[in-house]
Amino acid sequence: MKLKVDYNNMMKSSIGSKGIDDGFFADSAKAIDDAREKVNSSRGKGWQEWCESPYISKSELDDILSYGEQVRSKADSYVVLGIGGSALGAIAVNNALLHLRHNELPSDKRKAPKIYVEDNVDPERMNALFDVIDMKTAYFNVITKSGETSETLSQFLIIYDALKKAVGAKEAKEHIAVTTTIGKGTLYDVAVKEGFKIFGVGKGVGGRFSVLSPVGLVPFAVLGIDVKGLLKGAASASDSALEKDVKKNPALLSAALLVESMKMGCNINVMMPYADSLRYMSDFYCQLWAESLGKAVDNDGKTVNVGQTPAKSLGVTDQHSQVQLYTEGPFDKVVTFLAVEKYRNKCVISDLKEIDACDFLKGNTMNTLISAEFEATRYALMKANRLNFTVVLEEVNAETVGELLGYFMYQTAFAGAMLNIDTFNQPGVEEGKKATFAMLGRKGYEAKLAEVKAAPHTDKYVCGK
Amino acid sequence: MKLKVDYNNMMKSSIGSKGIDDGFFADSAKAIDDAREKVNSSRGKGWQEWCESPYISKSELDDILSYGEQVRSKADSYVVLGIGGSALGAIAVNNALLHLRHNELPSDKRKAPKIYVEDNVDPERMNALFDVIDMKTAYFNVITKSGETSETLSQFLIIYDALKKAVGAKEAKEHIAVTTTIGKGTLYDVAVKEGFKIFGVGKGVGGRFSVLSPVGLVPFAVLGIDVKGLLKGAASASDSALEKDVKKNPALLSAALLVESMKMGCNINVMMPYADSLRYMSDFYCQLWAESLGKAVDNDGKTVNVGQTPAKSLGVTDQHSQVQLYTEGPFDKVVTFLAVEKYRNKCVISDLKEIDACDFLKGNTMNTLISAEFEATRYALMKANRLNFTVVLEEVNAETVGELLGYFMYQTAFAGAMLNIDTFNQPGVEEGKKATFAMLGRKGYEAKLAEVKAAPHTDKYVCGK
Repeated sequence: MKLKVDYNNMMKSSIGSKGIDDGFFADSAKAIDDAREKVNSSRGKGWQEWCESPYISKSELDDILSYGEQVRSKADSYVVLGIGGSALGAIAVNNALLHLRHNELPSDKRKAPKIYVEDNVDPERMNALFDVIDMKTAYFNVITKSGETSETLSQFLIIYDALKKAVGAKEAKEHIAVTTTIGKGTLYDVAVKEGFKIFGVGKGVGGRFSVLSPVGLVPFAVLGIDVKGLLKGAASASDSALEKDVKKNPALLSAALLVESMKMGCNINVMMPYADSLRYMSDFYCQLWAESLGKAVDNDGKTVNVGQTPAKSLGVTDQHSQVQLYTEGPFDKVVTFLAVEKYRNKCVISDLKEIDACDFLKGNTMNTLISAEFEATRYALMKANRLNFTVVLEEVNAETVGELLGYFMYQTAFAGAMLNIDTFNQPGVEEGKKATFAMLGRKGYEAKLAEVKAAPHTDKYVCGK
Repeated sequence: MKLKVDYNNMMKSSIGSKGIDDGFFADSAKAIDDAREKVNSSRGKGWQEWCESPYISKSELDDILSYGEQVRSKADSYVVLGIGGSALGAIAVNNALLHLRHNELPSDKRKAPKIYVEDNVDPERMNALFDVIDMKTAYFNVITKSGETSETLSQFLIIYDALKKAVGAKEAKEHIAVTTTIGKGTLYDVAVKEGFKIFGVGKGVGGRFSVLSPVGLVPFAVLGIDVKGLLKGAASASDSALEKDVKKNPALLSAALLVESMKMGCNINVMMPYADSLRYMSDFYCQLWAESLGKAVDNDGKTVNVGQTPAKSLGVTDQHSQVQLYTEGPFDKVVTFLAVEKYRNKCVISDLKEIDACDFLKGNTMNTLISAEFEATRYALMKANRLNFTVVLEEVNAETVGELLGYFMYQTAFAGAMLNIDTFNQPGVEEGKKATFAMLGRKGYEAKLAEVKAAPHTDKYVCGK
């Protein structure tokens, strides 16, 4: 295990009465053990098929890697069409492991196609994409587990049509691969009929737990990201999550601390990485934490309306935006810092003789500065008696990123078990989907359309009309 | 006034007992009037100098516009060095009004330099910038109101050194402009000594209220953004904020509704635009709302630890990430939707005969789809009795964006007045700044360093060590 969790500032010893008592671990031993047992005994079963992702078969991995190499050699642009769990893992890992300005690098320095993850249906954004890619050298991955996601199917229809016009019907098929559930759904049927390359998503791998399945691995392979390193790190997180002693099991430990913070009135969890390379890890984490734990009923059918709202923040940037609120506002949040011990390169703050000022900065490095600001912010929160803990990565690389992803997924699964809810469903999004179908005039949704149209609305409550 | 606020779903008539009673406006009439009076009577005074931004003098504006034109004709890259209020306005407006893939467009289609707003001190990010810009054609704007911001001064030292090496000491001066308080601070002194072009920030214009001051206007002018349109829209918001009838004053109205939501237990305010062009408006809004309202004490010195935590979300993207929590989780949030009536272009979902599926999508447009999904999500939240209201822009353009910025600033000022706090200070960030100085060994901070080093910490609370 490379990842470290420093939870000093969650405890009374650091932040006084607003903190957690050391006795918590003894008092909660059974609840914590039960959660660990429940999650670990279900590995590979039902909706925990994601636990097996790090152990993908050699043949399946080889197929993904060779496909990636082949596309990488031909593609100038690589476009992922997907949304939610089909997009957030790729966005987070690409940003962490590729050059921070990847798409702007000249192709000889880039060594991989430009990457676009299209996770919205904004017409202005879709047209903007067409302005910067050349269909002749653009390759696409259409990702939807169900094979029915309206947003992704719409993008697919537009792209496939444009491809045919640009390179012809036969060649167009070569530019598209799909990642979906084998044998099921609209996208699968279309892919078989059209002869697209197909990658499968396991039946029990939910979208937000799919980053280490082909959903994420195919794009990573195309971009030349160290897939084996990612899986090795994830396997290490998987091993750590088996550890019986909560003090040695980071995912179980932070799950217990976060669930306790919820009971203490913290309904907000701020994710604050101190590295631009990790900024989209927050988006990945936010989906995982929000969609998994935000539930109306528990496993006994009791109405609980539980959930902790994740908030994205970035160090040091948001010290100048959010930290005022964190230190002085309500005692309603717990901050998770992501710290990096060693940045991948160095930047010296020039010691310009002619500038007769900034002596404490001159000759220092940005590395020292960002680390000092992280320590200072953590100290300021501690001094203001605010709950916070730090996940420490020794460096951002494939292995540590893989371990971080695994850690997040196990932490979420453990927390869901502690809350006695279904971590893996999302019934709350159905109403919106149905209403969308209704408004688009889909057959079978006439009653829903009538219902939506009958919603109360008065111009009396519209200002500016 | 072009902007509309639809607050049906804040009221009992739409969401039942979780909503606000129509009697609220009569009951709160005095508090609302007092807040309006307090803010409007202070326009242009003290920390409300920002209220005058839309009425910048012709000479000052001409200077900014001609400087912008001149840099635009020479620069291939334009880099803003700034953080917090010196960066977020530029990021939000650039993304709203430039092409969504601006930096990736070929220069003939771009018609303006590539834009980089560097608001962090991550060494990896700084080095990544050097990999994609050519110092010979890169121009810089160093922005810090106080002239003392460590992050920005560090960036300046690095950039100025690199510029001198690339183009020589004399030419380097031509590549740098600074925006700071005239006559005060380290950056001002350096700029005078080195002979940089200087733009001034008004004494009473705080960072998070400075987007329509030279802090934002200079970058906008360089990028060829319609500055006069922005100011016209902001002036319209300024006029609307004078309106005595709260039902006709959108900023006052939404401030009253949001403050009421806080009293009803909503300590979270989700900002959810349904347009990629507005996604960074959320970051601008989040600083404004968090830093202005997150305060420990009120104007009478009473400890209140007040504040509503802003959370960024994007439609439709986050329907697949956060909406599960919004509809089923705790009744602890109010959602502000930003809706667009007319997108700037159209994208037809191709009606491919050979795809025997997706009939309800084929032939439709993404415009219809994203609007239907917005309506459906708003409906689903309403049906789940969740507080939400919608700010409607007829289109995203300079005028509507300027009005939106003005609306956000007045809404914040009115809310601060209703909460009886100092909307314009940020005492909570001082501790972190001092601790940073201490850790960097700055003279005069020896005692603070000792204090920081004496902070309680035990390896017992570090997992993985």
